[in-house]
Amino acid sequence: MVSYITTLGQNAKQVRDTLAAASSADKNKALLAIADALEANIEAIQAANDLDLTNGKSNGMSQSLLDRLALSEERIRGIAGGVREVVALPDPVGVVEKGSVRPNGLMIESVRVPLGTIGMIYEARPNVTVDAAVLCLKSGNAVILRGGKEAIHSNKALADVMRRAIGSVGMPEDCIQLVEDTSHETAGEMMRLNDYIDVLIPRGGAGLINRVVSDATVPVIQTGVGNCHVYVDKTADEAMAVKIVYNAKTSRPSVCNAAESLVVHRAVAASVLPKIKAALDEKNVILYGDETACSILNIEPAAEDDWGREYLDYKMSVKVVDSLEEAIAHINRYSTGHSEAIVTNDYQSAQQFTARVNSSAVYVNASTRFTDGGEFGFGAEIGISTQKLHARGPIGLPELTTNKFIIRGSGQIR
Amino acid sequence: MVSYITTLGQNAKQVRDTLAAASSADKNKALLAIADALEANIEAIQAANDLDLTNGKSNGMSQSLLDRLALSEERIRGIAGGVREVVALPDPVGVVEKGSVRPNGLMIESVRVPLGTIGMIYEARPNVTVDAAVLCLKSGNAVILRGGKEAIHSNKALADVMRRAIGSVGMPEDCIQLVEDTSHETAGEMMRLNDYIDVLIPRGGAGLINRVVSDATVPVIQTGVGNCHVYVDKTADEAMAVKIVYNAKTSRPSVCNAAESLVVHRAVAASVLPKIKAALDEKNVILYGDETACSILNIEPAAEDDWGREYLDYKMSVKVVDSLEEAIAHINRYSTGHSEAIVTNDYQSAQQFTARVNSSAVYVNASTRFTDGGEFGFGAEIGISTQKLHARGPIGLPELTTNKFIIRGSGQIR
Repeated sequence: MVSYITTLGQNAKQVRDTLAAASSADKNKALLAIADALEANIEAIQAANDLDLTNGKSNGMSQSLLDRLALSEERIRGIAGGVREVVALPDPVGVVEKGSVRPNGLMIESVRVPLGTIGMIYEARPNVTVDAAVLCLKSGNAVILRGGKEAIHSNKALADVMRRAIGSVGMPEDCIQLVEDTSHETAGEMMRLNDYIDVLIPRGGAGLINRVVSDATVPVIQTGVGNCHVYVDKTADEAMAVKIVYNAKTSRPSVCNAAESLVVHRAVAASVLPKIKAALDEKNVILYGDETACSILNIEPAAEDDWGREYLDYKMSVKVVDSLEEAIAHINRYSTGHSEAIVTNDYQSAQQFTARVNSSAVYVNASTRFTDGGEFGFGAEIGISTQKLHARGPIGLPELTTNKFIIRGSGQIR
Repeated sequence: MVSYITTLGQNAKQVRDTLAAASSADKNKALLAIADALEANIEAIQAANDLDLTNGKSNGMSQSLLDRLALSEERIRGIAGGVREVVALPDPVGVVEKGSVRPNGLMIESVRVPLGTIGMIYEARPNVTVDAAVLCLKSGNAVILRGGKEAIHSNKALADVMRRAIGSVGMPEDCIQLVEDTSHETAGEMMRLNDYIDVLIPRGGAGLINRVVSDATVPVIQTGVGNCHVYVDKTADEAMAVKIVYNAKTSRPSVCNAAESLVVHRAVAASVLPKIKAALDEKNVILYGDETACSILNIEPAAEDDWGREYLDYKMSVKVVDSLEEAIAHINRYSTGHSEAIVTNDYQSAQQFTARVNSSAVYVNASTRFTDGGEFGFGAEIGISTQKLHARGPIGLPELTTNKFIIRGSGQIR
């Protein structure tokens, strides 16, 4: 007997060639239908969302998770607006990246084609259901969405609305499929469904990402875990350092590009750390310092675990270093490869830091919070890749395609 | 206690930042030293190779495998010549792929950087030891080479020569490391050494590739298994079809871009199949046909297994189809995603075939044998990727790098 997940995979395979061949105009028509349908069904979506919120409350879900789960009218309209923005983005499919005529007359070109079927495994936020579906659709990929059980009613409502919308403009509904069985087993089965899923994109906390990396045989794009550092060099403009650390830590602590660790050069620690702490005190940020930091500030001592921790909260570790070298070594040791920043006025320090820190985004004199498809000017993104294979940094539409070589000849043999 | 493989991983980590930062001039100097050293040590390399050949013979290794294992003086000089060709290729590291200034003044650019440490797991041919090492070196990656036990003496000699050569020009020898323990366990450990190996590239038969895909937690670039098809459409020039099939099947049957399956439109089967068979008879190619093919030719009936088989030999399956549709469906079902060709004079057939066949290289009126870094004009390659993530088709120097975003600001916050 064919399993539930295999059936979804087979459904996707049935439609993905049609979707891959769809014109930009047809895909955009489907996207606009989705945006309109989301707005036309706000009440139904909210009714489903209320079920999830009620369950969440009775299961003791924290207020911040409930906030992420909630779909207000404003938020649904925002999601629909996001879909319309994807309409405006260029279609990556069919772009000829390079091409040449070989000495033997073979005409060879490399063109962008969809990946095929993308599996998304994610956690609480139901907006991911729409964001991921529309980016996959625009890039010509069928998608199998497997969200968390906390949001299952919201996700079902959103997926139903989207499927009916694309069906109404003549696109196969199975281009977008939701896994309604949110058991541990369905996620595990997706991770090994190599015959039907081309790429798996997990989005969530370190636990989820680690499980997928460890268990999946389907190729994975790792996303999102960000233990981001801000390093204040000895020549830093102190006011700029305070402003950047404050922004990187407190403007949105729950996201992956928020800073989690502050690294400060010993020469300026006694001067700059109290100023940074005074700013962070406004938001009651709890600091965990090494010995030197604790001797300067009245803060908690950091445990070894703190250096690698992604708090996603108003908490931050503080490390004092003797040199740029030590800062780079510390960051490369504990970083998750997401985003790191240096605040400096020294040319050599800036050059060394950007050359030798091994993360997907390395900043000089700017907040780590800019690592984002929109902020980089690439449009919407499906996540931030922290792996080296395929895509690094924001994963937008071009990163949801692969290449194919087309070679036209006139009877050439080798 | 730290395991042997972990130690190699740690050694690589010690040197990889140095190698990543090495100038093109220094890397080219190391490559030329390797080429010279290979030629200066031909006798020692051959002495080691003789041990492998003797062992192979006494273990009943087939003549074709012995041929692939043997390092004649000419072959060693050829390998050294190949190294010098890599010197001439452009260095992919540091290439700025794109960049812009954002409205807030942030200057953002995407630059190519090495992957870090590459693990190669491969089988009998010792030339892979040198080919892989020099491509990794040129692209700034440390490499851990794990060849087959059949070639262990040859591989040790080659690795020793290369390590001493790069050491003699001041580059850390551990940029190139060979796994001297060729047990099943060392390969397995490499597949899960996520802390120290960034990318794994298996090169070999379907058994090896499947094991790596199934067991590895380190990201993998799948290479090489090629069940390549040639489809003869109803409007094909028959003489061209004969020439292309003959070349694709017989010019080098042991390589991954050789054709393994012939698909013919029913309208021309009775006319073209006997001509193709007459040509293939020159090389005593054994054909396995479906019912129609067998009714036209006096050949063996194909079993279901034959359609998916990579013979790597003078053998070929033959399928007769009713339409282009059926040909495309058959190919997409049984192909390994490597290379497929259509022989046709019909514009629509050519367009449909190139658009809808899901392989890394799709040909019109040319032999599948051209799927090769050199033939495509990209220079040397480390393998042919058949996966959709990261790299598809020939994996040359650019594909051995990843990107990194460098963002220069003046105090921007979000």
